[in-house]
Amino acid sequence: MNTSHRIESTLEAALAISTAAGCPAKLAAALQHAVFPGGARVRPRLCLAVAVACGDEHPEIADAAAASIELLHCASLVHDDLPCFDNADLRRGRPSVHKAFGSPLAVLAGDALIISAFQVFAPHFAATPTQTASLLSIMCAAVGGPRGVIAGQAWECEEQIPLNDYHRAKTGSLFAAATLAGAQAAGQAPEPWRLLGERLGEAYQIADDICDIVSDARELGKPCHQDSDLGRPNAADALGLQGAVSRLKQLLGEAVESVPLCPGRTELQAHIATSARPYLPKELARLAA
Amino acid sequence: MNTSHRIESTLEAALAISTAAGCPAKLAAALQHAVFPGGARVRPRLCLAVAVACGDEHPEIADAAAASIELLHCASLVHDDLPCFDNADLRRGRPSVHKAFGSPLAVLAGDALIISAFQVFAPHFAATPTQTASLLSIMCAAVGGPRGVIAGQAWECEEQIPLNDYHRAKTGSLFAAATLAGAQAAGQAPEPWRLLGERLGEAYQIADDICDIVSDARELGKPCHQDSDLGRPNAADALGLQGAVSRLKQLLGEAVESVPLCPGRTELQAHIATSARPYLPKELARLAA
Repeated sequence: MNTSHRIESTLEAALAISTAAGCPAKLAAALQHAVFPGGARVRPRLCLAVAVACGDEHPEIADAAAASIELLHCASLVHDDLPCFDNADLRRGRPSVHKAFGSPLAVLAGDALIISAFQVFAPHFAATPTQTASLLSIMCAAVGGPRGVIAGQAWECEEQIPLNDYHRAKTGSLFAAATLAGAQAAGQAPEPWRLLGERLGEAYQIADDICDIVSDARELGKPCHQDSDLGRPNAADALGLQGAVSRLKQLLGEAVESVPLCPGRTELQAHIATSARPYLPKELARLAA
Repeated sequence: MNTSHRIESTLEAALAISTAAGCPAKLAAALQHAVFPGGARVRPRLCLAVAVACGDEHPEIADAAAASIELLHCASLVHDDLPCFDNADLRRGRPSVHKAFGSPLAVLAGDALIISAFQVFAPHFAATPTQTASLLSIMCAAVGGPRGVIAGQAWECEEQIPLNDYHRAKTGSLFAAATLAGAQAAGQAPEPWRLLGERLGEAYQIADDICDIVSDARELGKPCHQDSDLGRPNAADALGLQGAVSRLKQLLGEAVESVPLCPGRTELQAHIATSARPYLPKELARLAA
């Protein structure tokens, strides 16, 4: 089964549970809208790529971890797009959830996606309790706690935003969860995989900052110039466009180097190099290569 | 250790993790505000009362379950009070979270409380994986899925609201989780305890509907006449005040009768009868007794 199919079918199964008979129709529709069709599924792909590089001993647990990460990511997008945050009407080239269904259902859909991200592990507790428990802790740390995605969003409400803490929490934490969880799902110690996730998260954030400046909304599928409009730090502003592309290139190099020894190390390194390309518009991707 | 102390200290420990060093200051303050000082802590008290009646074999797991339920309840209150839902400025006699910290932090605080509700189980997976896994499933079903608290809130966005499904999801599901989890934490089969939770949840909802009609905001500590203002079904409207009090009395009787055989059955039955009193203003509580 290929990676896309693994990811989409696990997400479909998760949503089938959340939206089963008895679910209010609009909530069910909002959940579907929030998750399908997806974007590049960068984080669950990374999770599965690491699991496969480590031998993919328990593919069904790797699938659950990948789906959990994507559900948490989708939840953060739905809430981040709300009028009280970014007020973004466009997501993945379509109306954002609150635009299509209203703010109440967008708040509830985000909440339900978070619950679903934990529920995907339920079938695996009995057979692999220790591993599943560790995955659960990885997810909690990546989203909650003092340094997860939620804290990252919350930095936007402070007067002083510490750029590194902000980006590491808002973007890096879920990329780190992807590499940690991929290794853990394959039965490997997760910690050695943190650096890879963090470097890729930082690279992705810089690419996102570059796109926010150079793209138009149609190409991006979401509003652009958000950072300057909302007064938020932007790496491409801080480093200049050429500086940001250089930094991105350096981070991808460090990411590739950081891959721990594992059966599929070479293949994973190649995957990282190619999968990072769609982070950027084509002409910039050539520059960064 | 008494029940209050067990609940408050477990909640404090959970928040200490979420708001540890590195957490943005306003998010940390919003989380504290959302959880402390608490209301009557009805649901975690019920959870611990059931655990104690069943022998309280693993008190630390019962504490985690009780805290998880209260954190999920607090999360639902924070999101439910938002301007896009009830737009309630008052909660527990103080400004609601969005009133004190703004809507962005209220959305994020609710999200973080949901994560924290799962994180409380992390220390218990290793020693009691099966039990903890079952508790996790109980929480997911109570909040997410097709019939949990989130679905209950989502019914308010539909044109037709099926009253029973609405109340069972919005209120009953978390009361049922309290009794199921209390039994499970004590090592007993949870399902026989569902009816008790459902009856108490329905009783609590009716009491809440009565209070919404007969109280003033100062006595209630939150806005009153919300149901009629927001066009939502209210049992005391539907049944009349006397009819609603009778129904409440009947439900509490059924709840007491439904308590499964267990070492502390008599004490638990007495607890249910007395703990239901604060549901209502004093003069009505006498009527319902």
